Amino acid sequence: MPGAAIIIGAGDATGGAIAAAFARDGLVAVPVRRTAEALAPLAERIAAEGGRCLSIGTDARDEDAMIALFDRVEAEVGPVEVAVFNIGANSPMSILEETARRYRKIWELCALGGFLMAREAARRMVPRERGTILFTGATASVRGGAGFAGFAGGKHALRALAQSCARELGPKGIHVGHIVVDGAIDTDFIRSQFPERYARKADAGILDPEHIAANYVMLHHQPRDAWTHELDLRPWSEKF
Amino acid sequence: MPGAAIIIGAGDATGGAIAAAFARDGLVAVPVRRTAEALAPLAERIAAEGGRCLSIGTDARDEDAMIALFDRVEAEVGPVEVAVFNIGANSPMSILEETARRYRKIWELCALGGFLMAREAARRMVPRERGTILFTGATASVRGGAGFAGFAGGKHALRALAQSCARELGPKGIHVGHIVVDGAIDTDFIRSQFPERYARKADAGILDPEHIAANYVMLHHQPRDAWTHELDLRPWSEKF
Amino acid sequence: MPGAAIIIGAGDATGGAIAAAFARDGLVAVPVRRTAEALAPLAERIAAEGGRCLSIGTDARDEDAMIALFDRVEAEVGPVEVAVFNIGANSPMSILEETARRYRKIWELCALGGFLMAREAARRMVPRERGTILFTGATASVRGGAGFAGFAGGKHALRALAQSCARELGPKGIHVGHIVVDGAIDTDFIRSQFPERYARKADAGILDPEHIAANYVMLHHQPRDAWTHELDLRPWSEKF
Amino acid sequence: MPGAAIIIGAGDATGGAIAAAFARDGLVAVPVRRTAEALAPLAERIAAEGGRCLSIGTDARDEDAMIALFDRVEAEVGPVEVAVFNIGANSPMSILEETARRYRKIWELCALGGFLMAREAARRMVPRERGTILFTGATASVRGGAGFAGFAGGKHALRALAQSCARELGPKGIHVGHIVVDGAIDTDFIRSQFPERYARKADAGILDPEHIAANYVMLHHQPRDAWTHELDLRPWSEKF
Repeated sequence: MPGAAIIIGAGDATGGAIAAAFARDGLVAVPVRRTAEALAPLAERIAAEGGRCLSIGTDARDEDAMIALFDRVEAEVGPVEVAVFNIGANSPMSILEETARRYRKIWELCALGGFLMAREAARRMVPRERGTILFTGATASVRGGAGFAGFAGGKHALRALAQSCARELGPKGIHVGHIVVDGAIDTDFIRSQFPERYARKADAGILDPEHIAANYVMLHHQPRDAWTHELDLRPWSEKF
Repeated sequence: MPGAAIIIGAGDATGGAIAAAFARDGLVAVPVRRTAEALAPLAERIAAEGGRCLSIGTDARDEDAMIALFDRVEAEVGPVEVAVFNIGANSPMSILEETARRYRKIWELCALGGFLMAREAARRMVPRERGTILFTGATASVRGGAGFAGFAGGKHALRALAQSCARELGPKGIHVGHIVVDGAIDTDFIRSQFPERYARKADAGILDPEHIAANYVMLHHQPRDAWTHELDLRPWSEKF
Repeated sequence: MPGAAIIIGAGDATGGAIAAAFARDGLVAVPVRRTAEALAPLAERIAAEGGRCLSIGTDARDEDAMIALFDRVEAEVGPVEVAVFNIGANSPMSILEETARRYRKIWELCALGGFLMAREAARRMVPRERGTILFTGATASVRGGAGFAGFAGGKHALRALAQSCARELGPKGIHVGHIVVDGAIDTDFIRSQFPERYARKADAGILDPEHIAANYVMLHHQPRDAWTHELDLRPWSEKF
Repeated sequence: MPGAAIIIGAGDATGGAIAAAFARDGLVAVPVRRTAEALAPLAERIAAEGGRCLSIGTDARDEDAMIALFDRVEAEVGPVEVAVFNIGANSPMSILEETARRYRKIWELCALGGFLMAREAARRMVPRERGTILFTGATASVRGGAGFAGFAGGKHALRALAQSCARELGPKGIHVGHIVVDGAIDTDFIRSQFPERYARKADAGILDPEHIAANYVMLHHQPRDAWTHELDLRPWSEKF
């Protein structure tokens, strides 16, 4: 029975690239986003590359749905070897204008969903004493900024989760990693909303999702005497 | 018209000491906790010390209630000069056993309440170009640990909020500070639950709430050319 | 016998203000810089304020001279209660142009001198189980930057020293603190070299040395159940 | 003309493994330590693996010698594509007993040598707009500890150098990385001095130098839109 790589938040370019990379690596990719239909192009790509894929539509903030997701994958696909949490929710707002509804929703997307994934993955991985749990971070994971109370709050909480999991689960054989992506990524969103920034693509000034994804696979393959918990990724020309 | 110092989370020894310290400093202390009745001993203490106090019962997670709180204080007492967020929710739990209900509640207490206070304080302070907003942190604010996914998540989010507010509101004349309290505090909880730890009180091995509180008043008095955003507090004998 | 407060690097505005502040606080100020003559104005100021002062010329990088300094102060003045290391050496240079001579000298000024002071202070304070050792840091203490390999190297090493001392000497009763000054200070250097920046003084946009100094005295007075190891200081309008 | 990978501090297991890994990767390995003779076994290993190697004896603290080293490698081997600084000097000592001679020597080994390598590498790489500069860090790079004033000082300075170089040289096309190795490494030193710790090797509890080295090669191959500046490496069972 092959293993599965669940990618929560496979709707964007990065999540899709991570799913495809693990499929090429031999696992069954399980890309997850709110609606499964939107995953059709990704499923086609993975199939075209000779990989296997099970697309699932799930709300990552729904506890029962997340439990059901992991149950289903373990039953239909096999043991979850990799679980990646890749949901972002970057939406700046002045502290003076931020609403409780938005502040809560950003946290639910960034942190609550990450917690549910981590717990469900851990529950299944710990008895097997193996598995990899990875979280996508951002600059806001390590630094609050004007207009970023919500996003930085969610991302800081996710990083705290990653550290807490690493310290509890590492000694149980589970590799927990946190990847701080610092810079614009080559996505439709950046292309349409930040054309000036997108122009830097010509000179490798924005991150290629495939290159990001390669690091997730690399972390999964690290032998357990030399695990990385955190690494950053940014274009050569990015200020930091 | 005198100014007010609102202390959200004045139920414990630290919050009470902070309220009393600001009352001694000349502001009207507005200690806030879930039920106002439980604040009676604190109100008596402040009165006995010659200070003024308005005790209010409010759920810090309730947006409308927090707006009403600030409206009432500004109407009945005067301008809010100081707002302190002092709610903690330390309750360790293995990631394998943590529930979504608890994880959410800890975040609501630690971070959502802090956000609501910060926004309501900022909205009133910014037009006056003065005011002090302070947040109580903990070791979990800067480090996730085994069993601390929930608490570290909430505290990391609160620190992200403090940094985001400092970077947005500092240039508008509002002093935002984050105090990392690292060590056991002299409270009934520590006395009854951790008697061995409490025994270190004899040798100044646990934090005196009055000494913690003095730092909050000190931060409020810093001239604006030399503001501290973050400081730590711990007993001399505490490992860190 | 009164106690002494040794301030290594009392040549600039900040060091002088720290010396004067401890003299007002009742200790005998011992301002130290390369040549004692240059300390005459400071000595006059301290005397005018009713304080006591012993100016000493010493090269902080000279091991024998530093031992002799502490021996002399303990013999002529009394127990060293406070030791402050305030030497900076900010001198940016591209990594491509930096020389080994400069790189070494900046480290000697920033770190070697701080080490010698810390050791000599610790040797005298530990048997008495009391005393305060304070180090002046900068933004470069916590962040390397383009052109700052030398200065950031020296300041990072000093912060490592402060942490190492705090963790070894705290449990022996010695309070070790590190103050991160982030922003331009009101000095002749800034006035003459950065007039645009100096103009921000009108709006409290640069740090007043007296206000910086107040924090050093405050740290010295913290009761030992609530010690601060690190705090930052910056003007309200400073970006960070 | 092939490129060269200079490894300063190739005397220990880690440096040797890094040299061999870059030789397998197609570069000419240039392992450097105090005396070239001691590099004979490493040279034999590299040759046996089909790689090329030029062993050089040099004191990394000697500015002229380091300039001559880079000149010679560029003349005899080819462009320096990779420069790795791997000298450590971990030697704990109480702050009360540390000597200026030792404190200085540790810094010279950890930081001065790293600076000389970084500058000489940068001077040759910047005109070509390519190259990789890597520094080996340790826990002491990010945390001072009791007894570690010297080592943490040197390692903090090296990290400041790495950050300063990254921020200056990244936009010039040079990849600068800092690897924080946290844990015991499988070396003769650990085997003979810490047998209890070495026993953890049976369960992958100490770092395999070959596994460490793989990360250096991985960093060198990262495409420039997705560079890592810092990553940590530790065994699964290591506390952190």
